[in-house]
Amino acid sequence: MKIARFSHEGLISFGIIDDDEIVVLKGDPMFAGYDPTGQRVALRDVKLLAPVIPRSKIVGMAWSYFADAAEQSAASGLSGEPRFFLKPNTCVVGPGDPITLPASSDDVHVEGELAIVIGKITRNVSVADAEASIWGYTVANDVTARDLQERDGHLTRAKSFDSFCPLGPVIDTEYDWTALNLESRINGQVIQTGNATLLKHTVAEMISFVSGVFTLLPGDVILTGAPDRSAPVVHGDAVQVDIAGIGVLANPVRRA
Amino acid sequence: MKIARFSHEGLISFGIIDDDEIVVLKGDPMFAGYDPTGQRVALRDVKLLAPVIPRSKIVGMAWSYFADAAEQSAASGLSGEPRFFLKPNTCVVGPGDPITLPASSDDVHVEGELAIVIGKITRNVSVADAEASIWGYTVANDVTARDLQERDGHLTRAKSFDSFCPLGPVIDTEYDWTALNLESRINGQVIQTGNATLLKHTVAEMISFVSGVFTLLPGDVILTGAPDRSAPVVHGDAVQVDIAGIGVLANPVRRA
Repeated sequence: MKIARFSHEGLISFGIIDDDEIVVLKGDPMFAGYDPTGQRVALRDVKLLAPVIPRSKIVGMAWSYFADAAEQSAASGLSGEPRFFLKPNTCVVGPGDPITLPASSDDVHVEGELAIVIGKITRNVSVADAEASIWGYTVANDVTARDLQERDGHLTRAKSFDSFCPLGPVIDTEYDWTALNLESRINGQVIQTGNATLLKHTVAEMISFVSGVFTLLPGDVILTGAPDRSAPVVHGDAVQVDIAGIGVLANPVRRA
Repeated sequence: MKIARFSHEGLISFGIIDDDEIVVLKGDPMFAGYDPTGQRVALRDVKLLAPVIPRSKIVGMAWSYFADAAEQSAASGLSGEPRFFLKPNTCVVGPGDPITLPASSDDVHVEGELAIVIGKITRNVSVADAEASIWGYTVANDVTARDLQERDGHLTRAKSFDSFCPLGPVIDTEYDWTALNLESRINGQVIQTGNATLLKHTVAEMISFVSGVFTLLPGDVILTGAPDRSAPVVHGDAVQVDIAGIGVLANPVRRA
């Protein structure tokens, strides 16, 4: 099932994608279940919004992929503790919304990532039980000001600007992350590809680890990290992050 | 005016402190104004809660004080860009609530800090206009797992555990930060003192700087950083952060 959040004739709603239409729901299905209003709207008539509003945290996993099979093989299965940073929820924009380049940076990079949407309050969950906390998956673009990251020596400011976390186009509640196949493009040119085989930790291991630090709340988002390299963008670029089975997250780039 | 959030006979309310009583308000005064219900309750009959629920961000200023007057003088007024980290809102606990030591750390430190509570949506505000975004000030304890900070090489995990941001006891809407006088105590012994004269940046400069990175929302909290050294705590300790004019934030320390 694919869930969208959208605006239509001035109202914001959630709905279930049904081919080229949306079955409109009465509330946020994360909290209110799947209760249809009876209305259907054409997908082409709506503006899709970020499918989840993080009420609390966006957790970004860092250095979460092996560079290649050789590195993976050399590591012999030892991948260390997961590492993460935080992005504030004010970073989130939706499909089609611009990624705004801040005046303070001359080297903004984009990275396509699979995003986990948490569906229930989760604290200290075991790896075995962690997948039960997942509401679904969406596509994310984890934007970073690389020059500020280097100047600061850490990721916080570099990852935190408004518009630095596009999410969408929909949440897939049945996605199989082990089949992850991701491609990021700038102006149609492929800049990044990756798949689940090089991930250092399973999705369940990521959730279990971060839930041992802080309580995860419904609507929290975990970005699973980027395979391959990130790439710089400039004003006027068109970025697409494509995850087969979920959809294409497309955002233009604009100078502030 | 001093604002408290409290529970009384099973209900959570906001109110205005009036000597040893609380004038109960109808809603959250940040959003609903100061509209009294007509009820008054004795301060001793309530449990004070964290006076603000951060809806989005807790921003922590790092390395924000000069060590002493000699360092300040040597810097000749050049204090560089403010630096900050993020704590998730799941860190917040209230007065009297335990600081819980996570199993993964053996070196948890406490730091007393003045906290700014943001009252309105603020983006790219100038230094001259920044103080208009302040709703009030409260007392914070910025708790850190120092061993995890060193192991990770950055602050995110070390600062993010549940209970690592006690706030309270009240919000003072008229506090003069230039008169800041802060003392932190463990089991009654002073471990940290400081005042505003050694701050590298004014409160307005901090707000202006972070609002140039991300939009500040009502209820966001900026921790202004700790003067002097932090100190380790162990199970059973009683920590107090005392800011003259606002109040004493007291929290016990418990092993998870």
